[in-house]
Amino acid sequence: MTTLNPLLAAVAAPPIAEAQRWIQGRSFPADRPLVDLAQAVPGYAPPDSLIAHLADRLRDPAMHRYTEILGVPALRAALAARFARFYGGTIDAAHVAITAGCNQAFCLAMTALAQPGDRVILPLPHYFNHKMWLDTLGIEAAPLAFRPESGGVPDVEEAAALITDRTRAIVLVTPNNPTGAIYPAATLRAFYDLAKRRGIALVLDETYIDFLPTDARPHDLFEDPDWASTLIHLYSFSKVFAITGHRVGALTAGPALMAQVEKAMDCVAICAPRIGQEAALFGLEQLGGWVAANTAAMRRRATVFRDALSGLEGWRLVSLGAFFAYLEHPFPGRGAVEVARDLALRHNLLTLPGSMFGPGQDRFLRAAFANVGDDVAPVVAARLTDALSSRDAA
Amino acid sequence: MTTLNPLLAAVAAPPIAEAQRWIQGRSFPADRPLVDLAQAVPGYAPPDSLIAHLADRLRDPAMHRYTEILGVPALRAALAARFARFYGGTIDAAHVAITAGCNQAFCLAMTALAQPGDRVILPLPHYFNHKMWLDTLGIEAAPLAFRPESGGVPDVEEAAALITDRTRAIVLVTPNNPTGAIYPAATLRAFYDLAKRRGIALVLDETYIDFLPTDARPHDLFEDPDWASTLIHLYSFSKVFAITGHRVGALTAGPALMAQVEKAMDCVAICAPRIGQEAALFGLEQLGGWVAANTAAMRRRATVFRDALSGLEGWRLVSLGAFFAYLEHPFPGRGAVEVARDLALRHNLLTLPGSMFGPGQDRFLRAAFANVGDDVAPVVAARLTDALSSRDAA
Repeated sequence: MTTLNPLLAAVAAPPIAEAQRWIQGRSFPADRPLVDLAQAVPGYAPPDSLIAHLADRLRDPAMHRYTEILGVPALRAALAARFARFYGGTIDAAHVAITAGCNQAFCLAMTALAQPGDRVILPLPHYFNHKMWLDTLGIEAAPLAFRPESGGVPDVEEAAALITDRTRAIVLVTPNNPTGAIYPAATLRAFYDLAKRRGIALVLDETYIDFLPTDARPHDLFEDPDWASTLIHLYSFSKVFAITGHRVGALTAGPALMAQVEKAMDCVAICAPRIGQEAALFGLEQLGGWVAANTAAMRRRATVFRDALSGLEGWRLVSLGAFFAYLEHPFPGRGAVEVARDLALRHNLLTLPGSMFGPGQDRFLRAAFANVGDDVAPVVAARLTDALSSRDAA
Repeated sequence: MTTLNPLLAAVAAPPIAEAQRWIQGRSFPADRPLVDLAQAVPGYAPPDSLIAHLADRLRDPAMHRYTEILGVPALRAALAARFARFYGGTIDAAHVAITAGCNQAFCLAMTALAQPGDRVILPLPHYFNHKMWLDTLGIEAAPLAFRPESGGVPDVEEAAALITDRTRAIVLVTPNNPTGAIYPAATLRAFYDLAKRRGIALVLDETYIDFLPTDARPHDLFEDPDWASTLIHLYSFSKVFAITGHRVGALTAGPALMAQVEKAMDCVAICAPRIGQEAALFGLEQLGGWVAANTAAMRRRATVFRDALSGLEGWRLVSLGAFFAYLEHPFPGRGAVEVARDLALRHNLLTLPGSMFGPGQDRFLRAAFANVGDDVAPVVAARLTDALSSRDAA
């Protein structure tokens, strides 16, 4: 029998798969269907125009062949142009790598920045795949304290205190997964200035950037002419164009890092899938109106869910934004896994326990409300209320 | 300015991109067109039936969503059934993970088996992405000597002598990339027995298995009822169905390793692209006849190239099989990069220098003849001959 990498063996199993096993093989009554708030998948399909375009493009033999390692040049240029418009600053095609999803962009960034024994600062609660990959590589994830009283926005002074001579990066996710918190522009600037001053990278994951509550520019980091010396930006096409299965994301960085990313990308993927890159390009060029309508719908949904989940007896809404709500549950003596499993088994409501997102999260649950319609908000509220009262009765 | 991971920074740039820069922006005369034998891409497109099937499947919303981390169950089952028929032995769907290409399968296998400081035995010349990934992870690639006099087939006794208490695996690629060598069944059995006896993994990359010269079973390793304790098998759908751009491969292994692979796959990809998985499934279920015809054509092409490249003055054919020929060049005083660049610039013939595949390979070039038609074989021979005579004249 072969031995296993002990670093990876110590990593917990992928949490979404574990949660999905709670409902596997079960059937649900028509009057009490499953409400699945586990995985962050848009509740809508991509538009017919995108599907027709891909069907047409499949007839081009190039669609079935490798692309350049860093992606189709037209897509890199289109995303760079979009980012330059949206964020301001100078961003061109050479700054952009197309990856097979945003998880891969994170893996490439970490592999490019840090070696085993190095340290990366990761705010709590963290996106589980980030922590899993750092553990797998033997990079220390230094936890930055969770601040529920600040709506989940981390503190830059506390981050500064965690920096050692082995620290290579600070990772921020905004809008945040799992909390939904949207970090203020001033907070992002303060973290950026800290990273720049200390000669480390700021890795900014903006997977959910297309679902901000307003049209205001979320930060001004790209307006620093020297942004490429500090900032590494991660993006996903999965959510904005509802193409999670096509596996396309992007990493935006300076030339020194990009040369490393190209080597790592060649090893782990050779290139992102071609037809997915076509989908992303079509989206950037043709789906502006469709995206705007979805953004508006998601803004409404966030408001509907905020109204439904605020002021519930026992439950406290810590933060909410883009795709996610983060809730404090009303059972101080019970762990988050137990509470989430109970909600799944007895109330047909699938959420993820906060404990899947790091230590100190046993009082919290993540609810990915983007998966369901606005009409489901009162159903979720009712089931949470039921869970409290049935527990009280037990 | 941020610092970089010194392990990755020390890795050389992806060699195919470097070779492609030799011809970038050049135009070639009609009577002396570029002959591109650099990258291993099938010279034919996928069949119309596959393209029509994918265009139809795109209308199913599921095609645009994530799959299970380890892949679509029907595809895992179909590949397991095909392998069980082809190799014999017990192989079921749970043994199979679908990956975004075979490079990714290798990355996952190494990440699952070894931690920084561990050792993996890698025969020379090696597939460059294998070496790059081991270097990136800080895993020592212990080189197993090249045996040109044995047609590039490595020696099992020499491998045994390289095993230390930090050794976690032996990697074999057959049909080999870059040499084209097809390892005899007895050699594969001897390596398997060695790995099993020493409690390490045998990682067998059979990306080019669909292009063997005969229908004989290439080895009997899966017939060991206990194969899953030692063998990790890597496969690619890219070549057999001419779908390199769709990024689909597979890793076949036992349950202990698979549990680790699932975690690493979740981090680096979440899942393989869905539409690529559909292409692979259609291929396994519907394209048996099309594949058989291509296999026959590739067998003919291998024979045509063997005839054309054998007995050329100065050049020596070391080995040839599946997609590749490995040639010893006639310029003892010149490095392989210089020879390959000269062939590209002066003779419009793009090959890869052996030095891209490890130390001691400066006398060799890799020619991926699968990319071109049978009629190109005499053109390649003529240009190699020209290169010798123009050099003699210079």
